[in-house]
Amino acid sequence: MRITPVLITLALSSVAQAAPVDIPASPNGIAFPADYADWRVISISHRVDNHTLRMILGNDVAIKAARNGQTNPWPDGAILGKVVWKEAAEVNWPTAIAPKAFVHAEFMFRDSKKWTENGTGWGWARWKGADYTPYGENAKIEQECIACHTPVKGRNWVFTTPAAFPAVVK
Amino acid sequence: MRITPVLITLALSSVAQAAPVDIPASPNGIAFPADYADWRVISISHRVDNHTLRMILGNDVAIKAARNGQTNPWPDGAILGKVVWKEAAEVNWPTAIAPKAFVHAEFMFRDSKKWTENGTGWGWARWKGADYTPYGENAKIEQECIACHTPVKGRNWVFTTPAAFPAVVK
Repeated sequence: MRITPVLITLALSSVAQAAPVDIPASPNGIAFPADYADWRVISISHRVDNHTLRMILGNDVAIKAARNGQTNPWPDGAILGKVVWKEAAEVNWPTAIAPKAFVHAEFMFRDSKKWTENGTGWGWARWKGADYTPYGENAKIEQECIACHTPVKGRNWVFTTPAAFPAVVK
Repeated sequence: MRITPVLITLALSSVAQAAPVDIPASPNGIAFPADYADWRVISISHRVDNHTLRMILGNDVAIKAARNGQTNPWPDGAILGKVVWKEAAEVNWPTAIAPKAFVHAEFMFRDSKKWTENGTGWGWARWKGADYTPYGENAKIEQECIACHTPVKGRNWVFTTPAAFPAVVK
């Protein structure tokens, strides 16, 4: 049996990059951003209509843009992640509402040249539950995202306003 | 006039580390952690009693501990930051409550050997408002923090439970 050097290289590299291989891509072809839990935070919210708490995280490009006010449009390469949990009262401080069961993580990927067809310049994807099951059966998932975000079309399709972190250097 | 190499080095290094010099230390001697906005997020909460939203951030030691379940006690070197804003409804999604005016940033610094005198093994400090004014007039600020945190004495004085980020590698 012969094993070519190419195959050996592939096998080694799949061990080294173990993280993303377990999570299937979104039906529209977007890969799961496996490092999202290491991103910094742009803002947070509490949806009192569906009783969920949300972190809005950003990759490095998004964080830099948020801090520089470059959010309409966001720059190409920015990724925004919204991480959602069911709410629960803190046992030791019941008027504090905090995250409990993980619901899903959903993302907007800014690429104004790639995502022209859906009319937004963003790629959209969601992974549900503790096993990060890709949401939706085909690329129509994007239309569902976009319909919901239409009220903020004039804000480059983004609901979130970056939370104010006062600058440290005056 | 002679300038010694030591003085030149100090001058250069104070330029290079510009950030912290503008913010006064807490009255109990704790320095402001000027890089806190770059820390990753441990959890969030919505205090419906005083209408504030909160991010609970952690330095690298705290993030590692949170992910490994090492939170009772937290390891020495861990710093937890609670960043607080007044709440406001999102204009474009009014049932989403989001951060508006910055209120303060407060911190717990874990050092079980240094902070024995206050009985908690944590140093406590808060900086208020957009100019990060140190809170309190003397080391008694710690007693105020500790009094409020007494219900969670058995949780190493910490209210926050790290939010569940499902592991990416199964």
